Amino acid sequence: MDIETEELEGGICAPKGFMASGLRAGIKAGAKKRDLALIYSERPCTAAAVFTRNLVRAANIIVTEEHLAKSGGRLRALVANSGNANACTGEAGLAAARRMAEAAAAKLGVGREECAVASTGVIGVPLPVERIEAAMDELAAGLSADGGDAALEAIMTTDTRKKRRAIRLALPSGHIIRIGAMAKGSGMIHPNMATMIAVITTDAEVSPAMLDRALRRAADRSFNRLSVDGDTSTNDMALVMANGAAGNPALEDEGPDYRAFAAALESVCVNLARQMAADGEGATKLLTVTVSGAETEEDAAELAKSVAGSNLVKAACFGADANWGRVLCALGYAGRAFNPETTNIAFSSKAGTVKVCRNGEAVVFSEEDAKRILLEKEIEIVVETGRGPGTAAAWGCDLSYDYVKINGDYRT
Amino acid sequence: MDIETEELEGGICAPKGFMASGLRAGIKAGAKKRDLALIYSERPCTAAAVFTRNLVRAANIIVTEEHLAKSGGRLRALVANSGNANACTGEAGLAAARRMAEAAAAKLGVGREECAVASTGVIGVPLPVERIEAAMDELAAGLSADGGDAALEAIMTTDTRKKRRAIRLALPSGHIIRIGAMAKGSGMIHPNMATMIAVITTDAEVSPAMLDRALRRAADRSFNRLSVDGDTSTNDMALVMANGAAGNPALEDEGPDYRAFAAALESVCVNLARQMAADGEGATKLLTVTVSGAETEEDAAELAKSVAGSNLVKAACFGADANWGRVLCALGYAGRAFNPETTNIAFSSKAGTVKVCRNGEAVVFSEEDAKRILLEKEIEIVVETGRGPGTAAAWGCDLSYDYVKINGDYRT
Repeated sequence: MDIETEELEGGICAPKGFMASGLRAGIKAGAKKRDLALIYSERPCTAAAVFTRNLVRAANIIVTEEHLAKSGGRLRALVANSGNANACTGEAGLAAARRMAEAAAAKLGVGREECAVASTGVIGVPLPVERIEAAMDELAAGLSADGGDAALEAIMTTDTRKKRRAIRLALPSGHIIRIGAMAKGSGMIHPNMATMIAVITTDAEVSPAMLDRALRRAADRSFNRLSVDGDTSTNDMALVMANGAAGNPALEDEGPDYRAFAAALESVCVNLARQMAADGEGATKLLTVTVSGAETEEDAAELAKSVAGSNLVKAACFGADANWGRVLCALGYAGRAFNPETTNIAFSSKAGTVKVCRNGEAVVFSEEDAKRILLEKEIEIVVETGRGPGTAAAWGCDLSYDYVKINGDYRT
Repeated sequence: MDIETEELEGGICAPKGFMASGLRAGIKAGAKKRDLALIYSERPCTAAAVFTRNLVRAANIIVTEEHLAKSGGRLRALVANSGNANACTGEAGLAAARRMAEAAAAKLGVGREECAVASTGVIGVPLPVERIEAAMDELAAGLSADGGDAALEAIMTTDTRKKRRAIRLALPSGHIIRIGAMAKGSGMIHPNMATMIAVITTDAEVSPAMLDRALRRAADRSFNRLSVDGDTSTNDMALVMANGAAGNPALEDEGPDYRAFAAALESVCVNLARQMAADGEGATKLLTVTVSGAETEEDAAELAKSVAGSNLVKAACFGADANWGRVLCALGYAGRAFNPETTNIAFSSKAGTVKVCRNGEAVVFSEEDAKRILLEKEIEIVVETGRGPGTAAAWGCDLSYDYVKINGDYRT
């Protein structure tokens, strides 16, 4: 669905009625960086979330899921920390995650089940929740409609760039709504999700069921098509809060307004996914893989993800080497219907396009042209396979020396 | 099954009645390295093979499978080249693979369907089969019982070490048999298989059906539990030829002699798999992951492979960082039954053992001890999960700067 949107400043605070703050609570030992964030809506919100599918689930994931279930998909706030994942921390970790929510709820005067919690950082280390409690007064006092960036900084770990997005659009009914978002994540990113925290706010009025539906579809087409290193983390979470401040009639069914909202939400999630891929640990290039002609969209997505996740393809992109055999190879082990004999491959970037494989076999191409195209910062691998209706994109990044450096000694 | 074996010299020529040769035919442009190998049995052999499960299959895979089917699992020779994978080369590639087998068959005076072919190297470039034909006289003339190393050198690509193994054992019936083997493979190695060529010879007499059964089981427990980079190649092949020169009564059922032979074959394959992991592209360390207490052996194997294949675990091993959270995380996304709350993890090497996780939570350990243990060249990650009977090992290597370097510009 084509929708017209206008880009806004302000990230998660761009929609009406949202405030945020971020500060340094001392969770990241030694580092003089912000590590604690709070996002608050002046009005009650409907909310929906998708979580990691890893069987090892961080305490904050378990607690947020509980709270959403108990509150019937209604939230007022999110408190989030970096520097500690609160994962593999047992009963003590669960208690710490609950105390984190309670501290925010007490201060904000809302129910504790209206508070979600998110954590990211090192696994298996007890969360110093008393530092979070001690910082809550100052954190709440700092809430403002200009606080989006402070909150965003407070959830970043190895991220080198701020990932945020905000848009405004008119629904077909004429009402103007806004969607804001922030995300962190650079390593441990893989379908399904990653050490990724994505927070999306909107002032649209949306029923819990429709918000859940829109988020699941958007996440499937964005975060779940993103691969940095093949590792699905224990802490992934994408959360959306809708506070209705825009005054639109509630989106309660699959009507035109809902479809416009869902398309806009998907575009925001895809934008965040691309930003995360481009800032993958050690990444020097954003890699987009598009597959068309597959039997179904799901087949196309799995084929695209297999290419985007191949270490050999990623290393070749780092080296600007047009090694299309590795692309074909990754398509071949994706585990989906795929016929190499009807498959064409091209490499594309703003420097041009070079066709490298036709019907599964080499075509003569200029290595110089290919090199020039692959030296760009954004590369697309274009795969046409067969004549089916299935089309999908996946995002990833190249594999560089710095990935190894960053991950060879993360804890020290 | 415990079996007593004695190590022999000679690799694939250690069993009676096998000869080999290797030379430079000019397939590897520019390089002054051997690139063409021939293995020949003086007597007819039963044979069995397992192939890549990639949907993109190199021409030599297709042709060898055809020949085995047409000959009823009987072979006399294998001709193999490096420098060109003959993959993604279409009808011309199939014709080239057939000519390769025909050239060897004509020279050796055997049926062309008694010749297997194997290729490894770059994908998508036409195989210069005329160079193979031109070299066949010299190749056949060079056959000798001392030719194992020349043949092995001729199939190596980015390998830095020769991978070979030969053993002798007494079957329970008293007959002495020998098994010899060689393998190449360092990048593109992943379950199921890789740019891996493994050739196994034996002078045992084994029926085609039992040889096939023994090879499949051995490959499942060795090559298919090996991961270097997650990429399953187009050219993987493990081939076993049994010529019966040892004079044992044919192994035609699941009796004690067969079980001893199968166990010995498995031990040879595991040995080759470990050599390949240790020589993974850019590897500085051999990584063994053992999982016990899983519900089934298959579950244990999938859990172990998930850890051995995790880029984050591999990078941590490179950096000698005892980041056990990544191990637990990789167990959690393996897609098999697994309960973190009953899982213990330890790191072990000849420098000692350090327990790092008990029942899914951190235990206090000495970072110094852990560092010392992880600085060794062979590391074991020991996972105990639950009380089930399922036990398995998987092999991999660390992820280093050199992996990226080797694969960033392989073709040039």
